[in-house]
Amino acid sequence: MRAEIVSVGTELLLGDIVDTNAAYLARALSEIGVSVYRRVTVGDNMPRLVAALKQAYADADVVLTIGGLGPTMDDITRDGLAEAFGQTLHQDDAAADRIKAFFAQRKLALLTGNLRQALAPERGWLIDNPNGTAPGVVFENPGKLAIALPGPPSEFIPMVDNHVRPLLQARAGPGQVIRSRTLRIAGVGESAVEERVRDLMLGDNPTVAPYAKPAEVHLRITARAPDITVANAMLDAMAQKLHERLGEALYGEDATTLEEVVVKLLLNAGTTAATAESCTGGLLAKRLTDIPGSSGAFPGGVVAYSNRAKHELLEVPEETLHRFGAVSRQTAELLATAARDRFHTDFGIGITGVAGPDGGTEAKPVGLVWISLAWSGGGLIEECRFIGQRDSIRWRSSQTALNLLRLELLRRKAGG
Amino acid sequence: MRAEIVSVGTELLLGDIVDTNAAYLARALSEIGVSVYRRVTVGDNMPRLVAALKQAYADADVVLTIGGLGPTMDDITRDGLAEAFGQTLHQDDAAADRIKAFFAQRKLALLTGNLRQALAPERGWLIDNPNGTAPGVVFENPGKLAIALPGPPSEFIPMVDNHVRPLLQARAGPGQVIRSRTLRIAGVGESAVEERVRDLMLGDNPTVAPYAKPAEVHLRITARAPDITVANAMLDAMAQKLHERLGEALYGEDATTLEEVVVKLLLNAGTTAATAESCTGGLLAKRLTDIPGSSGAFPGGVVAYSNRAKHELLEVPEETLHRFGAVSRQTAELLATAARDRFHTDFGIGITGVAGPDGGTEAKPVGLVWISLAWSGGGLIEECRFIGQRDSIRWRSSQTALNLLRLELLRRKAGG
Repeated sequence: MRAEIVSVGTELLLGDIVDTNAAYLARALSEIGVSVYRRVTVGDNMPRLVAALKQAYADADVVLTIGGLGPTMDDITRDGLAEAFGQTLHQDDAAADRIKAFFAQRKLALLTGNLRQALAPERGWLIDNPNGTAPGVVFENPGKLAIALPGPPSEFIPMVDNHVRPLLQARAGPGQVIRSRTLRIAGVGESAVEERVRDLMLGDNPTVAPYAKPAEVHLRITARAPDITVANAMLDAMAQKLHERLGEALYGEDATTLEEVVVKLLLNAGTTAATAESCTGGLLAKRLTDIPGSSGAFPGGVVAYSNRAKHELLEVPEETLHRFGAVSRQTAELLATAARDRFHTDFGIGITGVAGPDGGTEAKPVGLVWISLAWSGGGLIEECRFIGQRDSIRWRSSQTALNLLRLELLRRKAGG
Repeated sequence: MRAEIVSVGTELLLGDIVDTNAAYLARALSEIGVSVYRRVTVGDNMPRLVAALKQAYADADVVLTIGGLGPTMDDITRDGLAEAFGQTLHQDDAAADRIKAFFAQRKLALLTGNLRQALAPERGWLIDNPNGTAPGVVFENPGKLAIALPGPPSEFIPMVDNHVRPLLQARAGPGQVIRSRTLRIAGVGESAVEERVRDLMLGDNPTVAPYAKPAEVHLRITARAPDITVANAMLDAMAQKLHERLGEALYGEDATTLEEVVVKLLLNAGTTAATAESCTGGLLAKRLTDIPGSSGAFPGGVVAYSNRAKHELLEVPEETLHRFGAVSRQTAELLATAARDRFHTDFGIGITGVAGPDGGTEAKPVGLVWISLAWSGGGLIEECRFIGQRDSIRWRSSQTALNLLRLELLRRKAGG
């Protein structure tokens, strides 16, 4: 089965945005053995769009479009596909009702343009979009399929995963499949990871490739096989080998995040944690609460950005702030302890540092961050020297804090 | 002058890498007034590459290729362009000497494939590559130009800046530049924005196009003009018109974020704000502290995820939590007031809601969020009904809170 991807949007031709959607879709298709023949990007221009779609229709079995399904005049993909596929559009009443309800619920005026999103092809169907108003559209002609998907990634990605993959997998039937898995590593740098697994990176099938990500490393395993079972077995075997080399530095697979692993470990152990953040300003709490169900493990935190807040809300003595400074081992330890006390949790995490760009001194440069973990009768502290911009320093701080907590939870689990 | 970009590489069709080069080139071209007609991506497959290049040759004045100039067998762009442009290739002795010297200097064995990189077209020339071995290749036919550039960004980007831009600017003549500006709008949906500015979207130059972003709308103005001064004046004039239509819904331009605008307004007014967050779990504090210098306006916040934390740290009475619930107008108001009290600020912001995916009821469904703003002797509250996933509900909540504070700060500024 041969596919062509057509991205629609003048902003793509102007280079205003990078087409990450097309790469996501291409990877999804390659994983189910659908070969992408060509990718084309055209602007919001009907004659050029139709020309591109007609050529795609001629060359490929499946044409997938990205973008141009919005409610405004320059959203032309639906009409372009109808023309290229020789179909007409009619209003789908159920979809129209959903759109009307969406607007009514928000007390917004319904405009004519909004109902264009309820147009369905005479031969084909709509794909439900739980994250926006534009449904996806499937056009079906004998032996040919066109699938139109909306451009916002929060709407596009779930549609690819939940509809496009199963639909095309069913149509493509068995052949050669490509499966990938990503192993995620925290607390160890890219070179050190490569050092430990270099010989495994020389293989041809499966392949193993390292990617440096912000404050973590990903190892991507890719296997080619006649079917999914064989491919998965190859991935399992290689993942096992990598696990033996990397141990607990390896924290998760694929889309699993460090905060997800930490929340799960906390919940499984029936333990809780609270935060007291200065330089990360709520980022650590935000990451923990990104995880559904985190309320069972995380009652809350304090963002104590000013010294007064550190003193009043977290009882850091003024003398400590005066003598050692807000960015100090002493303050970090007191923040962690206070977080634990204030929220009655098993663990407290304290973070204080200089995120920059201003505020650095010779003794306490931008990038100096103290991260402290406190528990009943004990604790640990790490002095970090991060490089990079403000965002990166804050991210690395939250990443290090999560990883310290993760490793401590693993130690306890192993200890019984 | 019309251009087409052809990206070459199977790894792009597999989605293994995102084509940031094409976006970079597209933006560079648009800035010098060269209009990109279409972008195509093909794999390392000669017949498909030649077909794409022939079509590009037919439709565009300039064909730019990215990638496929390396020394290995699957680097086919040079040969593909020679075929599509009807030219032959011959060895360029100076280029061959440079490549030989490169290998000798590094004590590496020179392979036959390496010398393929010294091939030049009969009508055209090579572009020097100070950062790698593959020179760029320019093919020239009457009225048509093809420019082949290597794929590694560290080689590609300097060639675009130092060779492609000046070359095409000279060829395009004093014709045209394209400049763009993005206006950012909060608190008004895409359809409603379009309603107010529809007539201005019909223009040809400058063009105005709306883009829906998470909880905001962007309007992009693009002007073509003989030079930058004229283009900027056109952008200014259109921005002015749009500003008259949209008023204070328009919060910033280009890369300006809502949190940046809010922090600047707070600092300029010498006022401060604190946060008390439940469902957003620190996201609002995180966004405010993303901005360098925010410590002058934001002493801190409390993430009160559990009821006990709401009660103990923010003095929400147990009776309120019991009678109205944690997600209620009453709790939101008390959170905002408590944030103000605890951190001694001018404003307090309280957020409480159901971010999902679990925890929704018929009376209080997922997406119901109360957002409250408190100031000395007053305040306001908004009941929101967001749709979407947890991340999106949390993002929209923080966006709405920032916008409420922004509008209140603007009202005060206007009031004197």
